[in-house]
Amino acid sequence: MDIEGTPVANGYFMPAEWEPHSQTWMGWPERPDNWRDYAVHAQRAFAKVAAAISMFEPVTVCASASQWENARKLLPENVRVIEMSMNDSWFRDTGPTFVVSHCRQKLAGIDWNFNSYGGLEGGCYQDWSLDLLLARKILQVEKLPRFPQNLILEGGSIHVDGEGTCLTTEECLLNKNRNPDLTREQIEDELCSYLGVRKIIWLPRGSYGDEDTNGHIDNMCCFVKPGVVLLAWTDDKLDPQYERSMEAYNILSDTTDANGRKFEIIKLHVPGPLYMTNEEAAGLVEGDSVPRVAGTRLAASYINFYIANGAIIVPQFGDKKWDDEAARVLSGAFSDHQVVRIEGAREILLGGGNIHCITQQQPAIPRSKSA
Amino acid sequence: MDIEGTPVANGYFMPAEWEPHSQTWMGWPERPDNWRDYAVHAQRAFAKVAAAISMFEPVTVCASASQWENARKLLPENVRVIEMSMNDSWFRDTGPTFVVSHCRQKLAGIDWNFNSYGGLEGGCYQDWSLDLLLARKILQVEKLPRFPQNLILEGGSIHVDGEGTCLTTEECLLNKNRNPDLTREQIEDELCSYLGVRKIIWLPRGSYGDEDTNGHIDNMCCFVKPGVVLLAWTDDKLDPQYERSMEAYNILSDTTDANGRKFEIIKLHVPGPLYMTNEEAAGLVEGDSVPRVAGTRLAASYINFYIANGAIIVPQFGDKKWDDEAARVLSGAFSDHQVVRIEGAREILLGGGNIHCITQQQPAIPRSKSA
Repeated sequence: MDIEGTPVANGYFMPAEWEPHSQTWMGWPERPDNWRDYAVHAQRAFAKVAAAISMFEPVTVCASASQWENARKLLPENVRVIEMSMNDSWFRDTGPTFVVSHCRQKLAGIDWNFNSYGGLEGGCYQDWSLDLLLARKILQVEKLPRFPQNLILEGGSIHVDGEGTCLTTEECLLNKNRNPDLTREQIEDELCSYLGVRKIIWLPRGSYGDEDTNGHIDNMCCFVKPGVVLLAWTDDKLDPQYERSMEAYNILSDTTDANGRKFEIIKLHVPGPLYMTNEEAAGLVEGDSVPRVAGTRLAASYINFYIANGAIIVPQFGDKKWDDEAARVLSGAFSDHQVVRIEGAREILLGGGNIHCITQQQPAIPRSKSA
Repeated sequence: MDIEGTPVANGYFMPAEWEPHSQTWMGWPERPDNWRDYAVHAQRAFAKVAAAISMFEPVTVCASASQWENARKLLPENVRVIEMSMNDSWFRDTGPTFVVSHCRQKLAGIDWNFNSYGGLEGGCYQDWSLDLLLARKILQVEKLPRFPQNLILEGGSIHVDGEGTCLTTEECLLNKNRNPDLTREQIEDELCSYLGVRKIIWLPRGSYGDEDTNGHIDNMCCFVKPGVVLLAWTDDKLDPQYERSMEAYNILSDTTDANGRKFEIIKLHVPGPLYMTNEEAAGLVEGDSVPRVAGTRLAASYINFYIANGAIIVPQFGDKKWDDEAARVLSGAFSDHQVVRIEGAREILLGGGNIHCITQQQPAIPRSKSA
């Protein structure tokens, strides 16, 4: 059932990720041109993430017909596995963005347009027809109303504080491969009337090496709570990440959120640098996705964590120093959450993203109102 | 989540079809070797059935990835369409048989084994691997527990009165193409401990011409309420259906139900006889299903109706006399239900069944206990 008009006009807004969820949605990786060795390693990593989240809230994993039995087998019994076809498995970007009514009485989903992160010219894969239907299918499963949206936007390109502020990057949202006919102001208008925000904070760029997504915010910077952000950081001034982090730091230092707060900025150091190995690249088969080449710098960032009910699910890259540091910083930032470290998250990174990219929270509303 | 032990051992039983439903499940026809003209006519008929039921209770239609958009387009907006792969679309036979706990507090599903109505030798199609997963997938969507069952059984081969009696046929359930190693007594034991019945009434045969299913009961005889049955009938003593109907009539007259009641038998005259036309047969393409040949007598029966909440959804075959008579008889039998006549149900019949075969009721339980 589609709702006419915008979420804001209908009394809906996007709540912050730390607000209570009724469940988490995930996809199941499969395509062998993006996930090495026919996705077996990635599937194990996804299963580990799903299992970890399912200790804190219900999880639904969607898998294609040919992978359904395999997913069912590799996932814990308390994870729901349902059949759904997709071109790739980044539910942050292709799933619905859930919105709630102001008194948390009703739930709905925004179904953004999608062009595989840049269309036929700059996109990550050439056929995204199944991804276009994902949000609608998820909303059908949950019997939830849908807000259609023509704007091309991936969920990983926005973060909200739930109180009127949105973080995004110019590198992605103003990229001409997404919405060439829209101005910055027009895009801001859409974000305001769909997410229920009043102020957009534009960082110029995302993480270094994050070319797949053209610099998604969710690999670079996120909210801890209103007025507090975490920023991907490096102390190494020779690292090309440094310039990007410093640029974002300066902007965040000079601005205020929708409610006039100055930001507290917590630095979260990146691992590595990490590069794709020959062996990893050799595990890929040729397909219609962008080639992944040995030696490429991976866009590794601990910012790409997920906030579950009472837990922070954070990628670990096998970099002892910075893995530990990330866990320490996140424990401090989210003192009322348990930090759950997912070892082997490098396999998700090899596909182009991390834990935040592969998860989508469905906010909780009172049960009697949920259907 | 699987439950160990039988439904009866866990306090569950199968309620009668006239008890309140929370929703109806249906599949979406597609295979061009069974549904003529690439299933376009059948899809319209299925959509008509779904639309009719959805006036009385929620309906979920499952469609394959390639048909999802088409199904979504042809179905009313209030019908939920979810992606699910299948070999064919007879959810009565391949969906779960839902069971409830005695105080209607809990709901679960029996996941029978299935071999395409008779296996590689006598079955209707050669690959039934997707059908084997349907019940499990449906239960996952609804987050309901599952009772696995090794017995090969299609839901259309049983009818229960919800008070301890089961109707079935020897032609189907004792057929050596289903469970060759089990005796009648062993099959009875399984039915008793899975459906929660105490008495099985065996009719020797189903309707004439119903070779696909080997004589499913749901095309031949069903309960109106405990102690009252409807029986497919013909007054034409030369019709081979006559002998079958009379044989069933005699058995039903001579027996009692689980609670010692004699049966009131209401005769429901078959239409026709109806035969597959040349044009209809010509619309089929070659595949791995049993060939459908022009001139074949169709197993047409008004018994193959569905009981929705407050409505009887009955097939109409374009046979004015018997269509009207069926509506009259059913209105009398179900005086507190509205009889909804589905014109064009011949298209479902051409595929091998009718409205009861393509529907599966999910019993209602108090909402707070449903998940």
